[in-house]
Amino acid sequence: MPATLILLRHGQSAWNLENRFTGWIDVDLSDAGREEATKAGQLLKAEGLQFDQCFTSVLKRAIRTLWISLDQLDQMWLPVTRAWQLNERHYGALQGLNKAETVERHGEAQVKQWRRGFAVQPPPLDTNDAMHPRFDRRYASIPPASLPATESLADCIARAWPYYQQNIEPLLKAGKSVLVAAHGNSLRGLVKQLDGLSEEEVIELNIPTGIPLAYRFDDSMKIVSKGYLGDPEAAKAAAEAVARQTQGKKG
Amino acid sequence: MPATLILLRHGQSAWNLENRFTGWIDVDLSDAGREEATKAGQLLKAEGLQFDQCFTSVLKRAIRTLWISLDQLDQMWLPVTRAWQLNERHYGALQGLNKAETVERHGEAQVKQWRRGFAVQPPPLDTNDAMHPRFDRRYASIPPASLPATESLADCIARAWPYYQQNIEPLLKAGKSVLVAAHGNSLRGLVKQLDGLSEEEVIELNIPTGIPLAYRFDDSMKIVSKGYLGDPEAAKAAAEAVARQTQGKKG
Repeated sequence: MPATLILLRHGQSAWNLENRFTGWIDVDLSDAGREEATKAGQLLKAEGLQFDQCFTSVLKRAIRTLWISLDQLDQMWLPVTRAWQLNERHYGALQGLNKAETVERHGEAQVKQWRRGFAVQPPPLDTNDAMHPRFDRRYASIPPASLPATESLADCIARAWPYYQQNIEPLLKAGKSVLVAAHGNSLRGLVKQLDGLSEEEVIELNIPTGIPLAYRFDDSMKIVSKGYLGDPEAAKAAAEAVARQTQGKKG
Repeated sequence: MPATLILLRHGQSAWNLENRFTGWIDVDLSDAGREEATKAGQLLKAEGLQFDQCFTSVLKRAIRTLWISLDQLDQMWLPVTRAWQLNERHYGALQGLNKAETVERHGEAQVKQWRRGFAVQPPPLDTNDAMHPRFDRRYASIPPASLPATESLADCIARAWPYYQQNIEPLLKAGKSVLVAAHGNSLRGLVKQLDGLSEEEVIELNIPTGIPLAYRFDDSMKIVSKGYLGDPEAAKAAAEAVARQTQGKKG
């Protein structure tokens, strides 16, 4: 069996419902998000996938997605590595705001730039802001200077991709199968690099939630197949739903 | 805060209900077992415990106990290490049998010896038995010769304690707080060594399910306090319930 990489984007969180920027805020899955994770696990099981190693972020909406999937797969015993480098993009001072609040504070034109710019950072959190990650115990082992107070999509990719290269790619090279449960923007980063997308292309890329994206590699790490598991129409509809939601949130 | 070690024995599994020897068979928690795990998590939370690292076995009744506890604690982001060395004692060819079947096959006197003997092994699984751990993918990285086909309590301790010394004790020495969710016999092994119990004493030791046992250490790894969290009467009643269950199962 060729080395298999599965990328799984977590489903709906409580704040998706409220149309708020979440970023590194540790919001849980909604009931609908748990249902998405259950279906993702069933798709993985139907494919007969037997993983060797799992990765996720340090945010519970991704961790719970992984837990539910592993439960469905009956592979709860698999080793799991949690890495902040797989976290969602840090949205800086926008975290917690909803769309209306954001436009009110920063103006329509500015919000559009944050939405469209590959390397545009939202305003940073103040270093003394209680929401700054340096006050969160889960990041205590990371030098504060390495912790973001805001991130562009480019910044998010600049930490997610090296993490992949150092920790995940060697497993795939050794023929292992790896499951990564993470977030819209950290997964966009991996897909950009794996597929060789341009900055413009990755901005337009909408990864559907709760639908496993499977890459299979040959011995030289060339991609031999790529595709969403399950019904292709369902994956397409889910990607369109994500695109609509993004337009609603940030447009 | 002194280094804290919490030992947590998983609660009722589906097979406890049926009074069958479980060992390494990967039986899930019953609803009552999940409820015990929830209460354990609430006790940990009430204590204000902030862990640095978690350990569990590769068996889902312990893993799920940990998951439920971490969820209650809101510390799902903590690193978790799964280790077969923390598995339940391997019960050899008794695995899957209930008390009546065991007495019928092996006689009352023999069953009593397995129950009372510190170093007495039940009959081993045949190397070609489909239930032998060498056929289970989760043990694939372990040399088959190191995998047990049966274990005495002494054997179980002989793999759980060195694992503790190599992987858990160094964290405690560094002042970290560690949560271990595991099984009756692997935890008995740790308590025997930590408390300096004799073979006779450890055989009589009944660790209650779902009630966190807290050890606190000073800088020289001397135990400065030890006790069950929550209501002492509840812990005593739970230990007595375990003792009664064991008598019922193996006596």
